[in-house]
Amino acid sequence: MRSEQELKADVYRDLEQKATRSQHDPLQQLVLACRMLAARGHWDNGLAGQITARGEEPGTFRTLRFGIGADEATPSSFILTDDDLRPLDGRSMPNPATRFHLWVYRHHPGVNCIVHTHPPAVGALAMIGQPLAVACMDATPFYDNCAYLADWPGLPITNDEGRIISGALGDKKALLLAHHGLLTAGATVAEAAVLAIWMEQAAAMQLRAAAAGTIRPVPGELARESRDFLLRPEITDMTFQYFARQVLRADPGLFQGA
Amino acid sequence: MRSEQELKADVYRDLEQKATRSQHDPLQQLVLACRMLAARGHWDNGLAGQITARGEEPGTFRTLRFGIGADEATPSSFILTDDDLRPLDGRSMPNPATRFHLWVYRHHPGVNCIVHTHPPAVGALAMIGQPLAVACMDATPFYDNCAYLADWPGLPITNDEGRIISGALGDKKALLLAHHGLLTAGATVAEAAVLAIWMEQAAAMQLRAAAAGTIRPVPGELARESRDFLLRPEITDMTFQYFARQVLRADPGLFQGA
Amino acid sequence: MRSEQELKADVYRDLEQKATRSQHDPLQQLVLACRMLAARGHWDNGLAGQITARGEEPGTFRTLRFGIGADEATPSSFILTDDDLRPLDGRSMPNPATRFHLWVYRHHPGVNCIVHTHPPAVGALAMIGQPLAVACMDATPFYDNCAYLADWPGLPITNDEGRIISGALGDKKALLLAHHGLLTAGATVAEAAVLAIWMEQAAAMQLRAAAAGTIRPVPGELARESRDFLLRPEITDMTFQYFARQVLRADPGLFQGA
Amino acid sequence: MRSEQELKADVYRDLEQKATRSQHDPLQQLVLACRMLAARGHWDNGLAGQITARGEEPGTFRTLRFGIGADEATPSSFILTDDDLRPLDGRSMPNPATRFHLWVYRHHPGVNCIVHTHPPAVGALAMIGQPLAVACMDATPFYDNCAYLADWPGLPITNDEGRIISGALGDKKALLLAHHGLLTAGATVAEAAVLAIWMEQAAAMQLRAAAAGTIRPVPGELARESRDFLLRPEITDMTFQYFARQVLRADPGLFQGA
Repeated sequence: MRSEQELKADVYRDLEQKATRSQHDPLQQLVLACRMLAARGHWDNGLAGQITARGEEPGTFRTLRFGIGADEATPSSFILTDDDLRPLDGRSMPNPATRFHLWVYRHHPGVNCIVHTHPPAVGALAMIGQPLAVACMDATPFYDNCAYLADWPGLPITNDEGRIISGALGDKKALLLAHHGLLTAGATVAEAAVLAIWMEQAAAMQLRAAAAGTIRPVPGELARESRDFLLRPEITDMTFQYFARQVLRADPGLFQGA
Repeated sequence: MRSEQELKADVYRDLEQKATRSQHDPLQQLVLACRMLAARGHWDNGLAGQITARGEEPGTFRTLRFGIGADEATPSSFILTDDDLRPLDGRSMPNPATRFHLWVYRHHPGVNCIVHTHPPAVGALAMIGQPLAVACMDATPFYDNCAYLADWPGLPITNDEGRIISGALGDKKALLLAHHGLLTAGATVAEAAVLAIWMEQAAAMQLRAAAAGTIRPVPGELARESRDFLLRPEITDMTFQYFARQVLRADPGLFQGA
Repeated sequence: MRSEQELKADVYRDLEQKATRSQHDPLQQLVLACRMLAARGHWDNGLAGQITARGEEPGTFRTLRFGIGADEATPSSFILTDDDLRPLDGRSMPNPATRFHLWVYRHHPGVNCIVHTHPPAVGALAMIGQPLAVACMDATPFYDNCAYLADWPGLPITNDEGRIISGALGDKKALLLAHHGLLTAGATVAEAAVLAIWMEQAAAMQLRAAAAGTIRPVPGELARESRDFLLRPEITDMTFQYFARQVLRADPGLFQGA
Repeated sequence: MRSEQELKADVYRDLEQKATRSQHDPLQQLVLACRMLAARGHWDNGLAGQITARGEEPGTFRTLRFGIGADEATPSSFILTDDDLRPLDGRSMPNPATRFHLWVYRHHPGVNCIVHTHPPAVGALAMIGQPLAVACMDATPFYDNCAYLADWPGLPITNDEGRIISGALGDKKALLLAHHGLLTAGATVAEAAVLAIWMEQAAAMQLRAAAAGTIRPVPGELARESRDFLLRPEITDMTFQYFARQVLRADPGLFQGA
């Protein structure tokens, strides 16, 4: 019988060799991320959410045209801006509230995609000032990986908010913004999107749990190992592909002719 | 680099110049408002909700024919009444519970559309007599802008209720009615509808938050600035247009032949 | 200006003269009731719910064939039984847990339709032994109109349960069964179905409200007047017709060829 | 009039004689179980859930190919493994987190199907370390039938977890895994799937109930009788067939050409 260490090594090797990778280009991945987040209530309140990514050219960024909701996004919904949020085409209007994303990109070179939304459960946590709890396996991706900004800097359309939010993120991949919502910062679109989905789900479980009893954290050592497994690129990418297939079943013509 | 003040000025100028405006006529906007509210549970309990608007002729009002639910409303579902709720066609039956709307219109000349519904989360707040909290950015439109009527005047089919409710609204755009539901009063259909949607969402977050912890209000100065931004006509109108596109994707033939 | 009394009299006269009545036959109404209850989660747990009605012949009753869920019911899903739950066709199997309905019909000659389900919110109330609260207008149909059976008699397949449940109902139209679920008993299919829908919605609001604060009852006099208005046959019937139109939009062929 | 004992005997005899049995083969039943669990939120968080069954050959097991979500499962999504989780085809990748299932099969010869998921309500219970309550009829299948593993052994990809989980299950049909999720172990696919659905529904009711009041357990004798009735193979199988018909209405072509 294989030892515990051999079994783990076999699992990791299998993942590396057999995991499929997304076949969608970066812009398509952004569109898919929009749709899967929207399907899970991240855009229910209107136009408050944002998703951005670095463009292929250094110093360029993709963001949704202002006024477009995530559930209707297509490749042509995205525009390119420079690093002062000016549209490269000289006339489109990016969502002005994505300015703080630029500060995160500037100070976190490993971040290639940012999701910021105000979903219902994270929004409720943000009202009571409770950091995200890590009390079940599904929340372990946030173990020692979710910062908390306790003071809301206010309407995020200027540079002040950018400095504060970028600093609060630190070296984590997620950030709970009091009075506001969530931010996830991923090395890939898949990572940022999947973390945003998982974070809202973890917050929803936390709220239901806290209303009914006392939350018990997962022991740190186990949380760390689980986090490192669930954040392997193969896992987030396969999860993203799964969610993407759901999007494409709901709208099979999404990329046709695009 | 642009200063904070320059950045804000640029955002406001961009909004004024680039924001799109709804292309639907007033009656179509009412129908769209019905559908978007219904899709978010505002009519789940049957025929209790109402939406009305001033008609083109002074002293006339549009209201749903009694018995029609918001999720099935079309332009022909609306009838015109005079200011005593008598149908102009002499035979249709308006919802008798819209009588108090007339009092609001009489005493609030800037109000052109009223939404009154009993949605699930506002309904629960109304059972415990808690005013709406402003503890996250999404609730800031209600900062110093949501009145509270602590005593239910009873079944709203006579003039007493109209006097009381119209007085309780004061100069606010929203009203939480204890034991009853919500009322939003907008300068436009878009404003009344979007505020009703946001109010129910804010109430739902408040309930989940209060069940799990202690709610922390947003500091007043930040809430005020955020409210004034989110209530700009360009923002409520673009949000309404976004929700309207969702309605029309779900029922593409809604206005065909009408 | 009309007085308050004149206004109310006008509303009641309008309702009597202008309210539309359901055009569906009794069996179709039962099918519609199944579908509207299923669409609101009353059958989510499987085959536990029941709806029955008196048949045209005295001493006969309609009930679902055992194994058929409410969301798939059609006119041929119903069978006729005698007053000992024996199928008139000699071979079909009625749901054995509808035996206690027969006791209700025997002792309540004004009851023509019974709904019994275990929906999620009433189920939760049933776990904590809290009677239904009347703390908002939408719950007033249950003011002094919802009995409470505090002790579960156990699996309802024999006559003991029938005696106990029939007695607990008394002269009310609704009954909250501890550890179990809800029962509504209507003069019409419309009344029983609409009351079951309203009762689950009221229970859901009560749970959310109780988790977040202290519930404040509606003053009795106002609750009584509102109840009497909302239980007028015109109101429950128009509400039923509205919910029935939703059913038929979702399944336009439901009664074709039947 | 028949006595209580005669009535019960008649019900049991009727069930044995008249209950229909599933016409789907074992692989189709697994696919149907996937779809009905997915439709109820058991796979919302991505790829964390699992369902397995013994294969026709001793020492073989069916499991989903890693990366396939339950809502998209078809017969070809399942692969056969040996009792060390090696794919019989030599190249497919089973979900590595199903290793602990093998331990359950090894030590529980009567178990033929295992469901393990992290659904939202069980997940919240798992965060607060509360065993499943049996406080309403719908939860009685878990009376003295749901074990509780208070200490999470960590990421379930090695044999340690298998030993611990298999031991914790004991002679029960369900297991609540702290910090983790649920496990149901059935004599049939129908039993495992229906119990998983019922367990999540019972947990959701428990959370809502506990947030609003104090849960009152069902008296043991009544719970036992109800459990034994609801776990009769005819009942779980008819419930499974009902849920399966919902699956096939949503995807009528599921088994065509397969």
